[in-house]
Amino acid sequence: MNTENPKSPRHRPPTIHWVGGVSGHLEILDQRKLPTEVVVLKLTTTEEVWQAIRTLAIRGAPAIGIAAAYGIFLAARTVSPASQSAALIDVIQTSGAYILTSRPTAVNLEWSIDQMTRIAITERGIGVRQLVKRLLSEANAICTEDAEKCLAIGKHGQHFIPEDGGVLTHCNAGGLATSDHGTALALVYEAHRRGRKFQVFADETRPLLQGARLTAWELQAAGVDVTLICDSMAALVMQQKKIDVILVGADRIAANGDSANKIGTYGVAQLAHIHKIPLIVVAPCSTFDLTLPTGEQIPIEQRPAEEVTSLFGTRTAPPDIKVYNPAFDVTPHKLIHAIVTERGVISPVTSENVRTHVDQ
Amino acid sequence: MNTENPKSPRHRPPTIHWVGGVSGHLEILDQRKLPTEVVVLKLTTTEEVWQAIRTLAIRGAPAIGIAAAYGIFLAARTVSPASQSAALIDVIQTSGAYILTSRPTAVNLEWSIDQMTRIAITERGIGVRQLVKRLLSEANAICTEDAEKCLAIGKHGQHFIPEDGGVLTHCNAGGLATSDHGTALALVYEAHRRGRKFQVFADETRPLLQGARLTAWELQAAGVDVTLICDSMAALVMQQKKIDVILVGADRIAANGDSANKIGTYGVAQLAHIHKIPLIVVAPCSTFDLTLPTGEQIPIEQRPAEEVTSLFGTRTAPPDIKVYNPAFDVTPHKLIHAIVTERGVISPVTSENVRTHVDQ
Repeated sequence: MNTENPKSPRHRPPTIHWVGGVSGHLEILDQRKLPTEVVVLKLTTTEEVWQAIRTLAIRGAPAIGIAAAYGIFLAARTVSPASQSAALIDVIQTSGAYILTSRPTAVNLEWSIDQMTRIAITERGIGVRQLVKRLLSEANAICTEDAEKCLAIGKHGQHFIPEDGGVLTHCNAGGLATSDHGTALALVYEAHRRGRKFQVFADETRPLLQGARLTAWELQAAGVDVTLICDSMAALVMQQKKIDVILVGADRIAANGDSANKIGTYGVAQLAHIHKIPLIVVAPCSTFDLTLPTGEQIPIEQRPAEEVTSLFGTRTAPPDIKVYNPAFDVTPHKLIHAIVTERGVISPVTSENVRTHVDQ
Repeated sequence: MNTENPKSPRHRPPTIHWVGGVSGHLEILDQRKLPTEVVVLKLTTTEEVWQAIRTLAIRGAPAIGIAAAYGIFLAARTVSPASQSAALIDVIQTSGAYILTSRPTAVNLEWSIDQMTRIAITERGIGVRQLVKRLLSEANAICTEDAEKCLAIGKHGQHFIPEDGGVLTHCNAGGLATSDHGTALALVYEAHRRGRKFQVFADETRPLLQGARLTAWELQAAGVDVTLICDSMAALVMQQKKIDVILVGADRIAANGDSANKIGTYGVAQLAHIHKIPLIVVAPCSTFDLTLPTGEQIPIEQRPAEEVTSLFGTRTAPPDIKVYNPAFDVTPHKLIHAIVTERGVISPVTSENVRTHVDQ
């Protein structure tokens, strides 16, 4: 554990980062403590990775996909080099099923578990010792490629942010939700690098305040003009014509483009529609789940009541109050102006355009 | 100061209550501490009343109207009985202008200051000693009549809550926002007294969590089935068809029915419209400001950034982050299905219907 000056997020530790070789460890920036404390967690077992995902020490669909890949590797390296490849594959399948139980909504978790499992199966011939090394290099590749995809996403989508424009964000789809650069925020960073001037309004995003704690923090560190608002103020800033585009991430996108994202996104999308403001969903292709025809089939995680009834240990509601705390909602594709991925832009958002884009 | 068991709001102290005669004092339930502490504040000067209103120890348009009346009385009783009535009227006008600076949006403040000033002017002939007594009885009458109006409001509007229905509330327009019974919540209490079964979803209402801290607390105490949600979940529960009617209070209603209420109400109203759910504004007639043709002229209070960036002393956002924190927004009359007052129901909400209702 390593505590740094929280006032210097410009030099912050990476969101997720492997240190060393096969006997090394995983480091993640503990997002539960931000922005008041910068704490790095050192993880060495699959169980610790599961716990970090479940308790949101690491969060954001792409970032938890990467964590899952390392979680698989951490299980794989416990297999004796003297074992058969079949034993290793068995461990990978068991640990994959286990990691999948950490959070249900983000499909990127499944995607990277599948990726790791496929490698083990197709390359089983090289033996356990080599396979374990191969799995680490695959997890590292997933991590590195995620950052590259985010850069590409930023380039494909930056034009949605107009000069002197206003951008609204919900939750955190930034560098803290990915290996680096972010998804929705990749567009912001790219436009900022190009010298464009604009203003970002960040929804604080209750209950866990990812907008206040993470988005505001990383945009401020990057020198982007950012103003924090409560979720309930989003409609007002739209009415006041302060917003030209709304950028959000996604945790799972169905075949027709319906997108699950942080709770509150559906409301923001409806309000965007009324105020004639384009809503852009930004996510890597690994976020699509073409096995689901529509968003109705996306599993929605219910989180503990305590997330709503207390904040940093202080109680904010009466004892024993009933709470409804879904972590996500689904925005119908008809409310989405475009989906931006590392391959380009899907617009209009239709089943056909999604299929063509993802299958290319 | 008097701390009671916070688990027994059923026997809670009154929201606002005068104790004794002319030399008595004002007691208010300190709403900044709820629901974790039940603290009663004893106020004896106009300055203390101003401070209590400004810092939200007492809040809710009708309740701060009542507090203002007592604030005027507290100034009046400092005038020597040997003085001329003109000196008393002078003190009342000065203190009225002063109290008016405590919060700008709720018109009920103006309404009760006007009421007290009018009494002093029209009854100046009775001399200072009698006038001071008269002003206390007027403030007491404003307080008592507020509770009676709320009961009448409940009876006029209870039919909007269907059997087995779902009700959404935003902020607190309950017994804690009035002398007793509430405005929006008066409908809930009346339907509950009539044995109707229904479920209330209470928006927590950031930044100050009046929904979580106050509405959830008082409804739970009354045995009403209440579920707490974050503001960003309101759209989802509407989409899931859990809501049949939305009940909100108001801080000022323009001549055309445009209504200022707690920040977030405008967004809730737009979402209600999309989901074809009636939005009912509930307020006493003293909330109308017929001098303003539309809601555009209603002054909107901007509150300190700290309300958004920290909660009960814990910082939730990075240092020096820019914040936009308007305390209210204005819902256009076209999004309001009906306005319920102590006189009955205004529907459809048009300038003509408002004028006829208020001028009767």
